[in-house]
Amino acid sequence: MNAYNIAVIPGDGIGKEVVPAALRCLEAVADIHGGLKWNWTFFPWNCEYYLQHGEMMPEDGISTLKQFDQIFLGAVGMPELVPDHISLWGLLVRIRRECEQSINVRPAKLLRGLDSPLRNPEPFDFVVVRENSEGEYSQAGGAIHSGEDELVVQNAIFTRRQTAKAMKYAFELAAERRQSVVSATKSNGIVHSMPFWDRVFEEVGAAYPDAAARSVHIDALCAYLVMRPQQFDVIVASNLFGDILTDLGGAIMGSIGIAPAANLNVERKYPSMFEPVHGSAPDIAGKGIANPIGQIWTAKQMLDFMGYPELGELVLGAIEDSLSAGVKTGDLGGTATTEEAASDILARIYQRGK
Amino acid sequence: MNAYNIAVIPGDGIGKEVVPAALRCLEAVADIHGGLKWNWTFFPWNCEYYLQHGEMMPEDGISTLKQFDQIFLGAVGMPELVPDHISLWGLLVRIRRECEQSINVRPAKLLRGLDSPLRNPEPFDFVVVRENSEGEYSQAGGAIHSGEDELVVQNAIFTRRQTAKAMKYAFELAAERRQSVVSATKSNGIVHSMPFWDRVFEEVGAAYPDAAARSVHIDALCAYLVMRPQQFDVIVASNLFGDILTDLGGAIMGSIGIAPAANLNVERKYPSMFEPVHGSAPDIAGKGIANPIGQIWTAKQMLDFMGYPELGELVLGAIEDSLSAGVKTGDLGGTATTEEAASDILARIYQRGK
Ligand SMILES: CC(C)[C@H](C(=O)O)[C@@H](O)C(=O)O
Ligand SMILES: CC(C)[C@H](C(=O)O)[C@@H](O)C(=O)O
Repeated sequence: MNAYNIAVIPGDGIGKEVVPAALRCLEAVADIHGGLKWNWTFFPWNCEYYLQHGEMMPEDGISTLKQFDQIFLGAVGMPELVPDHISLWGLLVRIRRECEQSINVRPAKLLRGLDSPLRNPEPFDFVVVRENSEGEYSQAGGAIHSGEDELVVQNAIFTRRQTAKAMKYAFELAAERRQSVVSATKSNGIVHSMPFWDRVFEEVGAAYPDAAARSVHIDALCAYLVMRPQQFDVIVASNLFGDILTDLGGAIMGSIGIAPAANLNVERKYPSMFEPVHGSAPDIAGKGIANPIGQIWTAKQMLDFMGYPELGELVLGAIEDSLSAGVKTGDLGGTATTEEAASDILARIYQRGK
Repeated sequence: MNAYNIAVIPGDGIGKEVVPAALRCLEAVADIHGGLKWNWTFFPWNCEYYLQHGEMMPEDGISTLKQFDQIFLGAVGMPELVPDHISLWGLLVRIRRECEQSINVRPAKLLRGLDSPLRNPEPFDFVVVRENSEGEYSQAGGAIHSGEDELVVQNAIFTRRQTAKAMKYAFELAAERRQSVVSATKSNGIVHSMPFWDRVFEEVGAAYPDAAARSVHIDALCAYLVMRPQQFDVIVASNLFGDILTDLGGAIMGSIGIAPAANLNVERKYPSMFEPVHGSAPDIAGKGIANPIGQIWTAKQMLDFMGYPELGELVLGAIEDSLSAGVKTGDLGGTATTEEAASDILARIYQRGK
């Protein structure tokens, strides 16, 4: 029996609704597998916790998390209660950095049973490899002067180490897929960091002669994701560009509510963190109508990373079976509740697992 | 008779093909108007010029341009010949900055006669007001260390003056439209410049109580442009975010090749510059198949800005008539050449002008 200790942080808003749904699916695959056991430990770290304690997690929060095998997170943020940059940098971004989850892997594909908002999409299936630890998301910067003369500097900081690491990961991933890597750049407008990014991409790419590699400016790339997403296999992007591309990936799949993500510590020195692309969605929180698929597909990514790809496939297959049967939450044009959608997927996991 | 002196820079690639097409349309509306005359002065500043002269324009280039009423530009860039950041910062970005064209106005709407790649788009009609002079496009920054340890800093610089100017322009524009302004932000991830951006947006918005104002993170905003573009009226965005949103705007209209843009010196102290969203498209340059609509629609924006909105309407109406008649270049799924598409629009301008 392989037992895994998982830190579970439901977080805010719909995170609290979709995490339990995904845990039920993870229990189901453990059941089916027979030799796999989950030990969940729940952490109530979120914006309410912040209002009570003045911080998003206790002082030893990170060292506590580092003792777990993996972290399973819902969503963070309640901008009406706590400014986003406090809640997110105090929890989500902080865990990403302190657990050195320097690569964020975010697949997008046209699922069976789903209508894309695109008119006639050819089946697409790409993965965005997002540098997850630096770049445009930097605490370096500040203001000078006030009033009319106020001026703010924001530093984006790119290191060769992290840039090359994300790119290598992208090329390795492409080698298991269709051997194509596109680098998201903007070196025509952003003249220090992006020409550097292009240069590292060329250098890293040289070690992978079997892969087709090219750079595309982020503006055009966003347009291409709408016009011909089937063109793409692996896309490697900076922190900001990866963020933008993956919400767009969610949109062309049919809903941001289904897009999954994995914050990987590829060295497996610290736990990785699995949290979907979507946020806490305060507007629909508490209504029981959130789409659980983003969180459940994210559970599949955890299974893949932990060495159970066949269980991962089972989960994704069940999601597609359920969508094909027309079980859809409101964001996908259906009427199913979170509970109905999750229970249907759960039943189909057992069906497939028989 | 009102005579206008226009500096024409066809630039590189398809710029040289679509600019003449648009000038014919501008001649046609002058004809129809009767009291309007264009004096074109052509400047051969482009990447070939750079290869011959070692610079994108002569030393007195900017002061020469400042003597004109407006600048009409095609596209710049031939990355195979000259690195993009040299060609673009030596010409396009330089003119934007030195002529203080601090606002870039970029409309997107579902044209009559066009199929959007979106499945069932409700008619949409929004304008992106892009801060055009600072922000993420900054020459401040540099590298330290080399090899494994190389680290690059890129500064984004935001001033209250330019930020507030773009936002005021957005609110004034919304007052003539549907009184809704969305600000593109990313203050949950970019913690110095974007919280500042949000704060200025709130302050500027307070002076426009009749407008509905809200901030949306750029990742979600890109997704919404795909899922419900009809929601948007005016979007105000930083230099980079505006760049991304407007290529995406082109994509949902049906082609980046039709998206127009106006780089405005709102004070009318220096000439404004009219150049479409698309670039020089080296891959299709010289084949005579580029879509002239982006450049022709850009000519409409010049007419609007110069105080001839009825002529502008005439041009856009003719574009829509032509598309509705099925005259489309390859990017729109048709077979028309640049010449055929332009001639058809020209004929329809005369028809409408009768
Ligand atoms: C070519 C590039 C510098 C430019 C920009 O990003 O401003 C272009 O993409 C545009 O949108 O006009
Ligand atoms: C909430 C925010 C800081 C975060 C990000 O931009 O990284 C989110 O959008 C995401 O994509 O995980």
